[in-house]
Amino acid sequence: MPEQQECICALATAPGIGAIAIIRVSGKNAIGITNEFFVGKDLNKVASHTVHFGIFRGADKDIDEVLLSVFKAPHSFTKEDSVEISCHGSSFIIQAIMQTLVKNGCRMAQPGEFTQRAFLNGRFDLVQAEAVADLIHADSEVAHRTAFNQLRGGFSDLLAQLREELIHFASLVELELDFGEEDVEFADRDDLRQLIFKIQQQIEQLLNSFESGNAMKEGIPVAIIGQPNVGKSTLLNALFKEEKAIVTDVAGTTRDTIEDTLVLGGYKFRFIDTAGIRETTDKVEKIGIEKSKNALNKAEIVLCLYDEGIEKVFLQNEFAEELSKRKVFWIKNKVDLQEPAEATTDLRISAKNGTGIKELEKQLEKAASEKITGSTILTNLRHFELLSKTNDALNEVLNGLDTGITGDFLAQDIRLSLFHLGELTGTISTDDLLKNIFGKFCIGK
Amino acid sequence: MPEQQECICALATAPGIGAIAIIRVSGKNAIGITNEFFVGKDLNKVASHTVHFGIFRGADKDIDEVLLSVFKAPHSFTKEDSVEISCHGSSFIIQAIMQTLVKNGCRMAQPGEFTQRAFLNGRFDLVQAEAVADLIHADSEVAHRTAFNQLRGGFSDLLAQLREELIHFASLVELELDFGEEDVEFADRDDLRQLIFKIQQQIEQLLNSFESGNAMKEGIPVAIIGQPNVGKSTLLNALFKEEKAIVTDVAGTTRDTIEDTLVLGGYKFRFIDTAGIRETTDKVEKIGIEKSKNALNKAEIVLCLYDEGIEKVFLQNEFAEELSKRKVFWIKNKVDLQEPAEATTDLRISAKNGTGIKELEKQLEKAASEKITGSTILTNLRHFELLSKTNDALNEVLNGLDTGITGDFLAQDIRLSLFHLGELTGTISTDDLLKNIFGKFCIGK
Repeated sequence: MPEQQECICALATAPGIGAIAIIRVSGKNAIGITNEFFVGKDLNKVASHTVHFGIFRGADKDIDEVLLSVFKAPHSFTKEDSVEISCHGSSFIIQAIMQTLVKNGCRMAQPGEFTQRAFLNGRFDLVQAEAVADLIHADSEVAHRTAFNQLRGGFSDLLAQLREELIHFASLVELELDFGEEDVEFADRDDLRQLIFKIQQQIEQLLNSFESGNAMKEGIPVAIIGQPNVGKSTLLNALFKEEKAIVTDVAGTTRDTIEDTLVLGGYKFRFIDTAGIRETTDKVEKIGIEKSKNALNKAEIVLCLYDEGIEKVFLQNEFAEELSKRKVFWIKNKVDLQEPAEATTDLRISAKNGTGIKELEKQLEKAASEKITGSTILTNLRHFELLSKTNDALNEVLNGLDTGITGDFLAQDIRLSLFHLGELTGTISTDDLLKNIFGKFCIGK
Repeated sequence: MPEQQECICALATAPGIGAIAIIRVSGKNAIGITNEFFVGKDLNKVASHTVHFGIFRGADKDIDEVLLSVFKAPHSFTKEDSVEISCHGSSFIIQAIMQTLVKNGCRMAQPGEFTQRAFLNGRFDLVQAEAVADLIHADSEVAHRTAFNQLRGGFSDLLAQLREELIHFASLVELELDFGEEDVEFADRDDLRQLIFKIQQQIEQLLNSFESGNAMKEGIPVAIIGQPNVGKSTLLNALFKEEKAIVTDVAGTTRDTIEDTLVLGGYKFRFIDTAGIRETTDKVEKIGIEKSKNALNKAEIVLCLYDEGIEKVFLQNEFAEELSKRKVFWIKNKVDLQEPAEATTDLRISAKNGTGIKELEKQLEKAASEKITGSTILTNLRHFELLSKTNDALNEVLNGLDTGITGDFLAQDIRLSLFHLGELTGTISTDDLLKNIFGKFCIGK
């Protein structure tokens, strides 16, 4: 059991008025310090994981009726002695309790400090610790599932296992060095090559999932394009079920590119409404069209909206190349004003009265589910960069094997790849790195 | 033990992103329903007041790692079986857990429903239940102390005891009625008179404290008056330590009345900055001056600011009557620009560079502490009205005693006063009354 650090406290629930607020206390003597101000029971004598009702009494007066949950090391989130103080959710009471604690041997926790202690005390690795923050901020089904899987260790277990195998080879190669001139080969070069291939395959899979991961976090970018006045802004409003864009019957009303995210069927989309695409002499409108061409380039899914057949042909010709690289939905709008359906596989909608919107949503969800697959998805830039570096170092090892470099150079390249993997999971970490990671957490976590 | 009501659930912590959120579940089968979705331990077999770590598993997927606190009836806040689910503070997770519960036999709680159940199950009386809401919204030391005392039963105990004694007399009087024509007198009329005097004395003390209670809740109104450009807005900014009012050297800059509350030494003040008081021809400024005269009339404390002695005389003459009824501080401003102090008991400040502000704050706190005294303070209009009605009914009893009305009329008046006292503590309550009281609570309380 590691030695317990200085006692820290923080409000762990969201700020603002609520029925209940929780103040977390953790570290050396957390139970003893809290006990000094608790009228009800001697907390030093209670079992772990028990809850006690009583009065929290400040220096000179009763502050609140509280419920205290006591957790004894190592059976707490931080693996330290911890107390959770459940008080009435008034900022006055929260302040009064925290001030009492801080005046008596506690200090205010830094952002993420509870999770940092959990990491340092071996509750989980760095990737899992980062998942805690992702979990709190998850705003779609998929983002939640990915963060939760990551917290439960899916991704970490895989990396830890690969790292183990690589360490095995590294130690064999290093052992060869001890025998100096004797020209022995404990590490079978072919087996090493096979292992590296296997690791690289896994890493590449993870690296490839980063695009999905990013789309998941930021939303899959969906551009809505079409000629002026074809109903792009009306469609946007229909999808969002509110007035996102100003709609008039004047062609060219939308000039700024309007962007917002929406969750459909558990997937997050970032919709981009654009100015109509056509030749124009209006200067401001021209800038808008330029912007919408940029939007098209950033999109992964494109909704091509048209009214008359002629408009569809215009879009097909003008953007043939860009559209060929993207998932495209051809959508005929204003069907409420038209003759009965001609034979077409295009979606037929009326953005104005809502016809076909449900079907469009379903199609979008399907496209998203094809895009975001697999349970292990890379969502964090830090992870992406370290895995890329690991991959590069492994390529160097392969190069070395091909060119038959000496064992000491080989060992160095293997060690570098191990170093990057270790940085990823936190087996190797620096204060700066931890500060950077946990500094982004909210206080109380 | 009362029969348990339908199971309810609600988020009990403040909304928004936090490290932890608490979902409260209470009522019939609260433990069983939660247990269906908990992977970790069989909650039906655990002891009350214990905490359990595990996974909350929705219909088709794991939702979160949670800590569950189990409370068994009658040893919970509501006196029903209850579970507090401590999950990660993400709105996605909160929604997912609540949806799971609601689909499986729970319903969303109404505002204040947990406290209402606590009241209905006899945890506390209505006055104490109302104190819970006051406690959560307390924003000053004094408001907090008053609400906490009320929650702990100070005021309720007093009323309950007086009511007991009155009931005793009522029953004696009613007993006399049973003997009809026999002209017996079980209830000593002099003793009854004495008791009523005693009760009225207590009630009057409470009624008188209502002004303090109101001042405490809303803030003691403090008007700042003085001629234009004497530094009223600068003083306001100095007290608030921020730019509340626009300050220029143009006389008559402040036209709207600026109002805001500030807590000093545990007391809440409502400061009212006013336009300068002088004869003016500017129409807008004239309206402002009219407003500031109104402010003066609403104030309990007045800060009269002057620079030159002539201004002080102007204020003294112009507002002699209004000032005579209020606590007045004469304050000479801009002392940084002046000759050394002449002999005066007035406060000497420089709002601009902060000289004397600390002393002014101290004087204000002293004035407040003289205003708000006693530990039992009436803060609730409902209580004020019911106590007034009780008092009126008791006056009727006294009248009846004086005029020697018959026992049945006497009994009726006593019963009326008992009725009002009962409404106060909730011994007598209607659904409408409860709906009205608990509807003002936040959800989850």
